[in-house]
Amino acid sequence: MTEADAETAIGAAGAVREVALRARVASYELAVATRAAKDAALGAMADALTGRSAEILDANAEDVARAGANGTPTNIIDRLRLDQDRLAGMATGLRDVAALPDPVGEVVRGNLVANGLEIRQVRVPFGVIGMIYEARPNVTADAAGICLKSGNAVLLRGSSSARASNAAIVAVLRDAARACGLPADAIQLVPGETHESVKALMRARGLVDLLIPRGGAGLIDSVVTESTVPVIETGVGNVHVYVDAAADLDKALAIVLNSKTHRTSVCNSAESLLVHTDVAGEFLPRVSAALQRAGVTIHGDSRFAELDGVVPATDEDYQREYLALDIAAAVVPDLEAAIAHIRRWSSGHTEAIVTEDLAAARRFTAAVDSAAVMVNASTRFTDGGEFGFGAEIGISTQKLHARGPMGLTEMTSTKYVVVGDGQVRE
Amino acid sequence: MTEADAETAIGAAGAVREVALRARVASYELAVATRAAKDAALGAMADALTGRSAEILDANAEDVARAGANGTPTNIIDRLRLDQDRLAGMATGLRDVAALPDPVGEVVRGNLVANGLEIRQVRVPFGVIGMIYEARPNVTADAAGICLKSGNAVLLRGSSSARASNAAIVAVLRDAARACGLPADAIQLVPGETHESVKALMRARGLVDLLIPRGGAGLIDSVVTESTVPVIETGVGNVHVYVDAAADLDKALAIVLNSKTHRTSVCNSAESLLVHTDVAGEFLPRVSAALQRAGVTIHGDSRFAELDGVVPATDEDYQREYLALDIAAAVVPDLEAAIAHIRRWSSGHTEAIVTEDLAAARRFTAAVDSAAVMVNASTRFTDGGEFGFGAEIGISTQKLHARGPMGLTEMTSTKYVVVGDGQVRE
Repeated sequence: MTEADAETAIGAAGAVREVALRARVASYELAVATRAAKDAALGAMADALTGRSAEILDANAEDVARAGANGTPTNIIDRLRLDQDRLAGMATGLRDVAALPDPVGEVVRGNLVANGLEIRQVRVPFGVIGMIYEARPNVTADAAGICLKSGNAVLLRGSSSARASNAAIVAVLRDAARACGLPADAIQLVPGETHESVKALMRARGLVDLLIPRGGAGLIDSVVTESTVPVIETGVGNVHVYVDAAADLDKALAIVLNSKTHRTSVCNSAESLLVHTDVAGEFLPRVSAALQRAGVTIHGDSRFAELDGVVPATDEDYQREYLALDIAAAVVPDLEAAIAHIRRWSSGHTEAIVTEDLAAARRFTAAVDSAAVMVNASTRFTDGGEFGFGAEIGISTQKLHARGPMGLTEMTSTKYVVVGDGQVRE
Repeated sequence: MTEADAETAIGAAGAVREVALRARVASYELAVATRAAKDAALGAMADALTGRSAEILDANAEDVARAGANGTPTNIIDRLRLDQDRLAGMATGLRDVAALPDPVGEVVRGNLVANGLEIRQVRVPFGVIGMIYEARPNVTADAAGICLKSGNAVLLRGSSSARASNAAIVAVLRDAARACGLPADAIQLVPGETHESVKALMRARGLVDLLIPRGGAGLIDSVVTESTVPVIETGVGNVHVYVDAAADLDKALAIVLNSKTHRTSVCNSAESLLVHTDVAGEFLPRVSAALQRAGVTIHGDSRFAELDGVVPATDEDYQREYLALDIAAAVVPDLEAAIAHIRRWSSGHTEAIVTEDLAAARRFTAAVDSAAVMVNASTRFTDGGEFGFGAEIGISTQKLHARGPMGLTEMTSTKYVVVGDGQVRE
């Protein structure tokens, strides 16, 4: 590291430390705020997003213009772009969060022990949550809303390509929170444009209680391996659909098509198809034709590769998260071989079996260890909204703390409150 | 790193990888084992510990002799030493675990969504859990029992000072599990005596699902900062007792004495005493005399230091976990100052308030963010057994996943099982 680099790193660490300390102080106040106070602030934040849309859209236009000048691909620019409709959607999201029950204070369990001590396990906020995310500026409002409702101060580290939009959104949200009597420092941007500020956030153990990275596999990997702050890993999905010997092949066809083509760029879309050999003769031509009609390239094993237009698959195909109109495909001799294939290649996000056989469904759901295991349903249903959680901050693919779609409850920890009248241990 | 060092590191990583892979395969079988099969194995393991006591005690004698020859302090040797009574205690611990409900398969929540999908969140084992712990060989049996009951394969990395004892205990437990039809590789020692094997365990992300370090602050710190495998941090406790203006001073005296002196070497013993100024005049002489009679050295602020025998405190005293007959002590002007002191210095393990004032109790339990917050009770009650959990694998001082005493439930993750009849997303 050169001396200049070292100075930058120290500067970034200091700046991040300062916002984290302010967030910590704000978190004390927010942790004991009533639901009424938090919901009023969320309503005011929603109103402010549309009421002050001009300044947000001006800032966004600046980001979009810079992205265009930098030669950013059109689909990325589209994700970056805000308009009145998208702002209204962000506002609706905040109002939806306000309507959800407050997770803080929920008594998870409790008992009265023999010596008369009352023991209660109670939900409490984490304290300070750091979010590291890519392009889309709507995440800024979503994350701020979910963290505020769950009593957490949030440090937002969005993409530098959205810096003007994020700054404008955060300014509007902070003003609204402050006007409702909540601490503005509960919602802050992480200062600094360089990777040094992300590094500083990852090293802020003790000041930041939890980091949630949302974005591509590269971002998530680097946070998971470098962070000393506890992390919840989100999103990478090498998702499988297995068509069993006892599948209803019409349902199977609809589920495979929906899982693969409904929206290709998301983590719950299917990336691999496994078909039981007993139904391969009938199903392979049908599914191959239907997928190819939908524009999907099939990377198949030797059985699939006998069909027109199928490209031979390599191990790399079975491992990949395409996020595109591609699917890996293989024929398996039995259910256990399907389970073994999934154990080898899956990222543990979502897998589905299509079957009418109860024993096969029970074995698959017991043996497959993924955040969501579906029977006769599209993998696209792994989603907080579809599960009825009302708000989602990401989909956890780790096993510690939260697994699958994360809503307000997952943004809390617990503590034990123990009440006695002078008990001591003998 | 020299070439020889590099070879050692690669060798350790390979050996750890091999046991972890065997544990992973065993975990598939254990995850779907019935409660009946697991309880039968726990019973057989308990019988084997006493039935084969001779070989365990022989191995233990070897460890004790080596420790003696190395000049290990007597109190450490005492923790290392096994006898028939301690083995019987370990066996009873295993039978107690068998008697507890199986956490695996518990439906945590569930709902039926509008499109007819049934959604259930179900408890499942983590898979492979690594335990890194110091001297006491009874932890070997405790951890093996708790992990087996919760459906997890376990990799045990005890202290090298207990290597013969641990190897003998593990051999006995593996035989008993195998005789009951469960995979012996669900219980394994991590090979290797050097720190390289601990490092390899900490880098086995993807093979090991969770690491639990149990021991001193140095061990825990190094695991938390170096591990890429998710970690649950346990145990360090800078525990406070606050005596409020509205305290019953007899209760306060009993609670302070019990919290400090009942057992000094444990994480839930008190390390700091805070007293409200309104009761300082009456309480300070009483508590000071009683603590000193019990052999406790008081490191006090200027108010305490006016009393005979009190040593002046520094900031270092307020930060320390003595684990000895020492206590830091200060007078505070009010409840908020006590809360601020705790926020500054606490490690987030356990804090207690002694008060008859409901408003003070409510404020303290809401504002103090520790794993356990006590009202009118000794801090020594933060313990899985005392809480009625029946078995404890450690006390988590982190907020992610588990906080406070951890029993069987905390050794599980969850997954979502979603059952439909052909649903796709529109």
